[in-house]
Amino acid sequence: MINKLAIIGVGLIGGSLARDLRAQGLVGEIVGYGRSVSNLSLAVDMGVIDRVANGARAAAAGADVVVIAVPVASIGDVLREIAPAIGTDSVVTDVGSVKQSVIHAARTALDERFANFVPGHPIAGTENSGVGASLEGLFRHRRVILTPTDETDAAAIERVQTLWQVTGANVVLMDAVEHDRLLAASSHLPHMIAFSLMDTLVRLDEHRKIFEYSAGGLRDTTRIAGSDAVMWRDIVLGNREALLTVLRQYHEDMEELIAAIERSDADWLVDTFNRARHAREMLNKS
Amino acid sequence: MINKLAIIGVGLIGGSLARDLRAQGLVGEIVGYGRSVSNLSLAVDMGVIDRVANGARAAAAGADVVVIAVPVASIGDVLREIAPAIGTDSVVTDVGSVKQSVIHAARTALDERFANFVPGHPIAGTENSGVGASLEGLFRHRRVILTPTDETDAAAIERVQTLWQVTGANVVLMDAVEHDRLLAASSHLPHMIAFSLMDTLVRLDEHRKIFEYSAGGLRDTTRIAGSDAVMWRDIVLGNREALLTVLRQYHEDMEELIAAIERSDADWLVDTFNRARHAREMLNKS
Repeated sequence: MINKLAIIGVGLIGGSLARDLRAQGLVGEIVGYGRSVSNLSLAVDMGVIDRVANGARAAAAGADVVVIAVPVASIGDVLREIAPAIGTDSVVTDVGSVKQSVIHAARTALDERFANFVPGHPIAGTENSGVGASLEGLFRHRRVILTPTDETDAAAIERVQTLWQVTGANVVLMDAVEHDRLLAASSHLPHMIAFSLMDTLVRLDEHRKIFEYSAGGLRDTTRIAGSDAVMWRDIVLGNREALLTVLRQYHEDMEELIAAIERSDADWLVDTFNRARHAREMLNKS
Repeated sequence: MINKLAIIGVGLIGGSLARDLRAQGLVGEIVGYGRSVSNLSLAVDMGVIDRVANGARAAAAGADVVVIAVPVASIGDVLREIAPAIGTDSVVTDVGSVKQSVIHAARTALDERFANFVPGHPIAGTENSGVGASLEGLFRHRRVILTPTDETDAAAIERVQTLWQVTGANVVLMDAVEHDRLLAASSHLPHMIAFSLMDTLVRLDEHRKIFEYSAGGLRDTTRIAGSDAVMWRDIVLGNREALLTVLRQYHEDMEELIAAIERSDADWLVDTFNRARHAREMLNKS
């Protein structure tokens, strides 16, 4: 049972988590805070939060659990702001898509309360943002990765674990370095590709006709290009090295593909497409 | 009314077209032919075709309408094979994703019957192949592009136009050069990107873990990497120059993205992601 839950950043993720915890009858009061006043009003109107706090620190004051669901580069600022308000037994967690940079910022910002901070990342979402896009059941059967450090309090980890389990998620503990390396490939790279493809196309003179004569292939391939730009700028810069490693690899592989097409290498193409196709089946089953 | 319809290549597209025309009660007999005996048996069992012909030429003999739905590099061979069986009033059409190379092959293969050939391309499909993947209504509200030449018989064009309108498709006439340029960007490029991304990922040591910690983003971005390798080898080689133009552009744009991440250019990233996001909204509305 959580008496007071603070959600800082009441968007797709923060809002969906609040809705699930409320639906399970596990929270007393849910207090929200964020930058957009209209989004916060909507969150109250939708019943996602009970009231809007006067600031991040006020939201965190007296809260058993504080969930920070803002773009990753802003997590440090939020933590610095709320640090004085975090009680001895309070738990703070985040939902950022990169973990090493967040842990680094948290260590500096929280100082003696760093043990109360459990770095987390639900592998769920859609390309939409804001509380209006929040959904009940968004995390059901999805993975949530927690990346505690050696200093993280064991009871805090357990509390955050339980919180996510309540939403139907499958919680996994993982090292932050491994998390950032895996997610660079499984999520950050595809987002870069989708953004880049849409940007290439829209810069072509004929882009309106190209869009007109497109089918499900282009639409699916670029769905995630609808994602929030600031959120993704932060993820990119927060996971720069790991992302660059896979991005450079992808760029080189694309160069090989171009060379194979230039020399009309039919066998190379069939082999590569078949390998990709089998990999896609493997992904389907995992 | 079509007394005898011949479908050469009874797969996703050929099979779906046959099903629609049958459902509308517009065909007498549907005869099929293809390379895979098991696929043809399934087509008969499913009632998609009435019987299997002894070969492409036998299928075409006496048919009012012949639909060729095989990988694009094989269309020339099929046309050469059926040429002697095409009646004066018969109409032949294809469903290939590239049109200039098909027209070139058709001119050579059909000679005096070239006027009976209406090059076509339904902008529809899924990543699945074979008659088992065929669907009624696949073409409803989708675009079908016909790219007749100056020599194409006007009555033949009209006949093929009607055929597709019956399926609920929106039929458009277009120059083959324009078709190939537009489709290189709207369809062939996204397919290359999806194949290439899956291939990059599966070659990473950790690919099983990467797949395990992936979400809808990777799945959607790579759905079309499940497409048939031979079909796509043919499209790539059949539309080599137009595809290389957009592929090189994309590759250069990706290089700019990598450079921007390397120099941590936050503004460049936000601008580019926002431009891509707006382009994606434009695509959604088109």
